[in-house]
Amino acid sequence: MTTKTNAGRFFEDYAVGDTLHHAVPRTVGAGERALYHALYPARHALYSSDLFAQSCGLPASPLDDLVAFHTVFGKSVPDVSLNAVANLGYAQGRWLAPVWPGDTLRSVSEVIGVKQNSNGKTGVVYVRTRGINQHGADVLDYVRWVMVRKRNADAPAPDPVVPDLPKALAASDLVIPDGLDFTRYDFALAGEPHRWGDYAVGEIIDHVDGVTVEEAEHMMATRLWQNTAKVHFDTSARPDGSRLIYGGHVISMARALSFNGLANAQMIVGLNGGAHANPCLAGDTIRAWSEVLDRAETAAPGVGAIRLRLVATKGGAPFALRGEDGKYLPEVLLDLDYWALMPL
Amino acid sequence: MTTKTNAGRFFEDYAVGDTLHHAVPRTVGAGERALYHALYPARHALYSSDLFAQSCGLPASPLDDLVAFHTVFGKSVPDVSLNAVANLGYAQGRWLAPVWPGDTLRSVSEVIGVKQNSNGKTGVVYVRTRGINQHGADVLDYVRWVMVRKRNADAPAPDPVVPDLPKALAASDLVIPDGLDFTRYDFALAGEPHRWGDYAVGEIIDHVDGVTVEEAEHMMATRLWQNTAKVHFDTSARPDGSRLIYGGHVISMARALSFNGLANAQMIVGLNGGAHANPCLAGDTIRAWSEVLDRAETAAPGVGAIRLRLVATKGGAPFALRGEDGKYLPEVLLDLDYWALMPL
Amino acid sequence: MTTKTNAGRFFEDYAVGDTLHHAVPRTVGAGERALYHALYPARHALYSSDLFAQSCGLPASPLDDLVAFHTVFGKSVPDVSLNAVANLGYAQGRWLAPVWPGDTLRSVSEVIGVKQNSNGKTGVVYVRTRGINQHGADVLDYVRWVMVRKRNADAPAPDPVVPDLPKALAASDLVIPDGLDFTRYDFALAGEPHRWGDYAVGEIIDHVDGVTVEEAEHMMATRLWQNTAKVHFDTSARPDGSRLIYGGHVISMARALSFNGLANAQMIVGLNGGAHANPCLAGDTIRAWSEVLDRAETAAPGVGAIRLRLVATKGGAPFALRGEDGKYLPEVLLDLDYWALMPL
Repeated sequence: MTTKTNAGRFFEDYAVGDTLHHAVPRTVGAGERALYHALYPARHALYSSDLFAQSCGLPASPLDDLVAFHTVFGKSVPDVSLNAVANLGYAQGRWLAPVWPGDTLRSVSEVIGVKQNSNGKTGVVYVRTRGINQHGADVLDYVRWVMVRKRNADAPAPDPVVPDLPKALAASDLVIPDGLDFTRYDFALAGEPHRWGDYAVGEIIDHVDGVTVEEAEHMMATRLWQNTAKVHFDTSARPDGSRLIYGGHVISMARALSFNGLANAQMIVGLNGGAHANPCLAGDTIRAWSEVLDRAETAAPGVGAIRLRLVATKGGAPFALRGEDGKYLPEVLLDLDYWALMPL
Repeated sequence: MTTKTNAGRFFEDYAVGDTLHHAVPRTVGAGERALYHALYPARHALYSSDLFAQSCGLPASPLDDLVAFHTVFGKSVPDVSLNAVANLGYAQGRWLAPVWPGDTLRSVSEVIGVKQNSNGKTGVVYVRTRGINQHGADVLDYVRWVMVRKRNADAPAPDPVVPDLPKALAASDLVIPDGLDFTRYDFALAGEPHRWGDYAVGEIIDHVDGVTVEEAEHMMATRLWQNTAKVHFDTSARPDGSRLIYGGHVISMARALSFNGLANAQMIVGLNGGAHANPCLAGDTIRAWSEVLDRAETAAPGVGAIRLRLVATKGGAPFALRGEDGKYLPEVLLDLDYWALMPL
Repeated sequence: MTTKTNAGRFFEDYAVGDTLHHAVPRTVGAGERALYHALYPARHALYSSDLFAQSCGLPASPLDDLVAFHTVFGKSVPDVSLNAVANLGYAQGRWLAPVWPGDTLRSVSEVIGVKQNSNGKTGVVYVRTRGINQHGADVLDYVRWVMVRKRNADAPAPDPVVPDLPKALAASDLVIPDGLDFTRYDFALAGEPHRWGDYAVGEIIDHVDGVTVEEAEHMMATRLWQNTAKVHFDTSARPDGSRLIYGGHVISMARALSFNGLANAQMIVGLNGGAHANPCLAGDTIRAWSEVLDRAETAAPGVGAIRLRLVATKGGAPFALRGEDGKYLPEVLLDLDYWALMPL
């Protein structure tokens, strides 16, 4: 027996400044688009209809913003998180260009921080991952940090480097897709009358609907993004025989559910931060609520930016997030902080 | 907390003459086509092969007739049936133009009838729903009526208006797709030798095959049509924790199963009526049988029309439909009456 | 009730020299491509990225080699294996041309052998099946043999004809896709550094990862190939209520898992033989291991051929294949022998 297989990297294998060229570029198109709509109750009109997208100044309907995220993220898994104990956080995520059917995406990560934990057995690795299309243009970049096992607990700790990451992107950092224009926006076709000016900072919205999730669905989704982390697929990978649902599946489900109340938050353009608060398993019923965190104008015609907290739960009361101890309640699955574009 | 979410319309919210512009237009294409074939054992050659469709005078293989139906229907759900107690019936459904990959569909409904029930708590709403493509051409229209809850039982009853609906479309009302020509029809490639003239009115056919249905499949299908009625997705929506399978899933499954015996009933062009006789749940094994109700010639070369009853069951003997009390037997899921086109 | 349905052929219905024109041609494209990647953890770069395929001399990324196999195979099921007791073997399978999105495939089989079994109740039928595209060009051909029930045990036995089938294709029999050139192959993007010269005959590789399979997934896959054999779909078809997973689902799952260790075995071009050793059911966790059986050079620039045994299991130790009695161990699902193309 030979060892040609990939056992994944351990904490010692990362050094600040390293560039990781992730494998398996991927051409995405009409099939991924349809599967995204079959796997999530996605209804944002700009990602559903070529005509609607054209009425907003785009040449056609791009692939959903989270298709870009999942595809770019999935490629980084074999090099970044195969031996990860936990996916700790995201920051500075920016969508830089729409992904069109037929585009080919690849991913590259740069190691921007390493810090060994005090237990000596694990460490935290910070990477900035970029998604790049067939023209060499960046479509997305974001920072994430993960806790990774050490191969050898006796290996010396590296000098700690912890990047200085902002709590949120400034609205001026957001990139608006070329041509986007919401001045002729059709609110009736979009599904709700509420415009940017109708949302107040501090406002909270219960998205009402729930979806009970199944093993076949989350595995199909996760494979579609070529994310091969075994905990999602193999019942023998965890002691209790359960398959852990890819956190991105929860993000997409919650974002789709948020249509009911945020139908006009058409495009995600910034990811300020996010925590996968508790594991999600098949049989859980995912619900979502949102809180308006900030609002800003943009230079694009008719286009406002809205900063939202999106919380996914598997039960409990809406709007409950943390217990008295300051920790996430056990029924909270996701706490995501993002910027979206909305008609003024 | 604000109430920007859609709670759905109640009986008092409908008035005869109202036009409902349904939200979220949808571009459909190669992905929906493949998913349709993954979700149902669909084998009708005209919807499977561009070459076969071209040999029948069409420019390419259109999307399955029921993809058009489900897409148009799904858009109407948030405005018509979110608070529906029951989907009572269909009438006068006509396929008016094929849907091609890349087409964008939207739906509009007109309220054509309202009648409060004697209990004062619910009423029946009749709508005519049209599906419209990106050229502004109608691709489908049909009437359906649903029982809807009143918001306020004390609200006064409207003057009852009940549309006069025919039991079936006349063959002369059917619209044959432009160019359709079955004179060079290849029966070997289509899968069966039986032509229009081989079917006799009154003939019944057991389609033999059965499919046991799964939660993941019916949810993916229902989401693909952007039908968001919560009873299909959320185990907490019904007292027994079951998810009710979208009636259209049963229609598509039964139609696909009917290939075995009706392989040449290529295109559905008319929906005369239909009843979802009993609920379908995951784990049920769907079977189907058909009865020939009528036959008619058409003006298109080599093209005959056949009117069929399609019955889906979850058990029981084939050809059993109603009990001695005249009610549907408990194992009957669907009783559909449609016109299809078949080679002479 | 009439009998217009297909009851399938019995042993007496096959005679050497018969040609079976299988029904329902199929246009495949971007949707099938995406579904293949959602159903299997497929990561071979040439089937994932148009750019990668172009860097290897092809005009675009073809559909996965096994999409061609399943589509061609599925069409043959109603005429060859509807009454089959067992799928006994494969031989002389050759991929003759890539399948591109938009291609339309049909299948034709020739009966090349028949031999009644000594019990008088069944017989073995040998067919050579060809897949043909819209240009009339063969894309694939292979021999398979199945055990089929006799309709009438008293029917006389035909003269036995057993084709002389080679244990494996010679490397010189393999057809290399036009233009394929691995001289500029990007090993980093492909995911592994191991080239043809790094694999030694006799080497065995444990592919490490496992996937627990679900009913919804295997049924979607099997329907996608329009394979309608009822044992895969109908819980009432087998005494124990289980649905037998289509053997091709196991082939695709194992091949996809083999990426981990054989990422550069890009294209399957020959199928020397194969046995579905034991049934696979939902809930099984599929793992895979490979053995290098042979290596050969080819005339194409930079392209080597490697002959591999691919074994899928549902448990047990890797590399265990047969018991002391010479029979497959009960946990072995598949023993496949194929040729693939790999960069030198």
